[in-house]
Amino acid sequence: MKGAVLYGPRDVRYVERADPKIVEPTDAILRLSATCVCGSDLWPYRGLDTPTVMPAPMGHEYCGIVEDVGREVKHVKKGQFVVGSFFASDNTCEICNAGYQSRCIHAHPMAAEGAQAPYLRVPLADGTLVATPEPPPREMVPSFLAASDVLGTGWFAADAACVGPGKTVVVVGDGAVGLLGVLSAKQMGAERIVLMSRNADRQQLGRAFGATDIVSERGDEGVARIKEMTHGLGAHSAIEAVGTQESMLQAIRATRPGGYVGFVGVSHGVELPGRELFIREVHLMGGPAPVRRYLPELIDLIWKGKIEPGKVFDLTLPLEEVAEGYRAMDERRAIKALLRP
Amino acid sequence: MKGAVLYGPRDVRYVERADPKIVEPTDAILRLSATCVCGSDLWPYRGLDTPTVMPAPMGHEYCGIVEDVGREVKHVKKGQFVVGSFFASDNTCEICNAGYQSRCIHAHPMAAEGAQAPYLRVPLADGTLVATPEPPPREMVPSFLAASDVLGTGWFAADAACVGPGKTVVVVGDGAVGLLGVLSAKQMGAERIVLMSRNADRQQLGRAFGATDIVSERGDEGVARIKEMTHGLGAHSAIEAVGTQESMLQAIRATRPGGYVGFVGVSHGVELPGRELFIREVHLMGGPAPVRRYLPELIDLIWKGKIEPGKVFDLTLPLEEVAEGYRAMDERRAIKALLRP
Repeated sequence: MKGAVLYGPRDVRYVERADPKIVEPTDAILRLSATCVCGSDLWPYRGLDTPTVMPAPMGHEYCGIVEDVGREVKHVKKGQFVVGSFFASDNTCEICNAGYQSRCIHAHPMAAEGAQAPYLRVPLADGTLVATPEPPPREMVPSFLAASDVLGTGWFAADAACVGPGKTVVVVGDGAVGLLGVLSAKQMGAERIVLMSRNADRQQLGRAFGATDIVSERGDEGVARIKEMTHGLGAHSAIEAVGTQESMLQAIRATRPGGYVGFVGVSHGVELPGRELFIREVHLMGGPAPVRRYLPELIDLIWKGKIEPGKVFDLTLPLEEVAEGYRAMDERRAIKALLRP
Repeated sequence: MKGAVLYGPRDVRYVERADPKIVEPTDAILRLSATCVCGSDLWPYRGLDTPTVMPAPMGHEYCGIVEDVGREVKHVKKGQFVVGSFFASDNTCEICNAGYQSRCIHAHPMAAEGAQAPYLRVPLADGTLVATPEPPPREMVPSFLAASDVLGTGWFAADAACVGPGKTVVVVGDGAVGLLGVLSAKQMGAERIVLMSRNADRQQLGRAFGATDIVSERGDEGVARIKEMTHGLGAHSAIEAVGTQESMLQAIRATRPGGYVGFVGVSHGVELPGRELFIREVHLMGGPAPVRRYLPELIDLIWKGKIEPGKVFDLTLPLEEVAEGYRAMDERRAIKALLRP
């Protein structure tokens, strides 16, 4: 088969790769219905966080039909439509049982398998994959694909930020994760959802997902606006979906003492001053989202038509045009590019 | 009256200070039964975090008899024995109601009043002070004094670290707060309490308070020991009671993904690498303990003889020898010095 491979900065090619096959008896092979480019793929694309071995297969978001399973796979069946997290997990260890499957003691990064391809090997299939009640109609596929990472990540951020009824939540970052953080906060019953954004299209989608307010100021000015809106106290919750020093401090400073910051932007160059954390006295929780924890609930919400996270895909391309997907996202012409094998 | 005043590095004097008096109608004046030197007092004593105006009155831990109250004080009565937090708070604002009284919108640091003295003005008396059922016997006074800060702080750290039945908790720091973190963890039902300490006397007191294990290794070696003790996973909870880069990283690294770190050591020179926080994926919560939240429960436990946190005072001096109290703690000859006016 062919699939996406990164050769160097801004050099993604759709080239011949080995067909995936069952390696471990707990593996499954999927025929992907859709895959996509992640905001986090842009870091290596831009020459940062480069994979140790290059050229490297790319992609870690996926959903599709089970083509084959290893002999120890018990629950996942051929022909099922399944969604999995960007980390494979056994879903049985103590860490998984506590709800942190992306840090499973057997966690395997799906990026290493390269999901921007027509077929994908998924290790630990029973612990990683969740099936829909039956194969979904084509128009639902983008939403299930979103559940694989961006929705699950936005949801985790909102959960880590203890979003709930009566709460004011600030969302820092208007990328796909931030926008789905808005959707998640809405589902969790937040009273006020403030999206920090300067981009008209993203603001519009944010409003469609449930944002009640938009703040275009950034840094200290942005924080001051949030304080004004919250009787000087700050928000109850903040979702951080960028990963820079500025965005982390903005989220922390916009949150009231005793409030909660859920951070999911992959951290780049962030150094948090301990004294400020001590004085701000906010709860801080973040990292790679344990998407597997939320998949049954998210799949149910999508299946029942209660949420449509697939709207974050504002560009759909045939898989062979994957390089254009990267370019469009790198240049911020697209929020998120869906790829159809 | 006379009281403790800091004149410069390692120069604390017992000198004449103005008698405290009712300034605001919400004030109370206490005649202190006991006061003490805090680990955090050692920072300015050593020339760090120096108060902006010097010479500066010192001390923020106190309990005693109400001598007088302002005309708007409704609940606190003359003659009551009361304990208060190191921050005065209104206990009615949104932040207080959420349980973060040390960050009350009207928070007032009691250090500014200088509690190492025979008398003390307490602002916002109704929101700050909690009375015992009746004036306690003399031998209980040290325990009530401990509730004012070190016990309340250790308790908050254990609470922030989600200590509970079946959990393994690591305590980084064998000072009074760390030791009372051990006591708090024991009260909260922790299954295994690991005190990191190299000091035989402190280890002994830690064991008396409920520590089940002692680890004398530090840094990476200390973390490796904790991992060994927890099937390679790390502790469920960590209490950080020092405030240095090494102690913070030790606490974070000794905690499993999804676990909780409660940090209460006043942060000095700490810079937390964002990428490591992202990867470690632990909950982080800390700052000045909202002691007021816990005072009713702590007073009840002490009153009923269920806990004896006053054991952390291993040196008792007349108040006029306050300078010796600082010296003894600075030189680590004493864990904590109680001062009797």
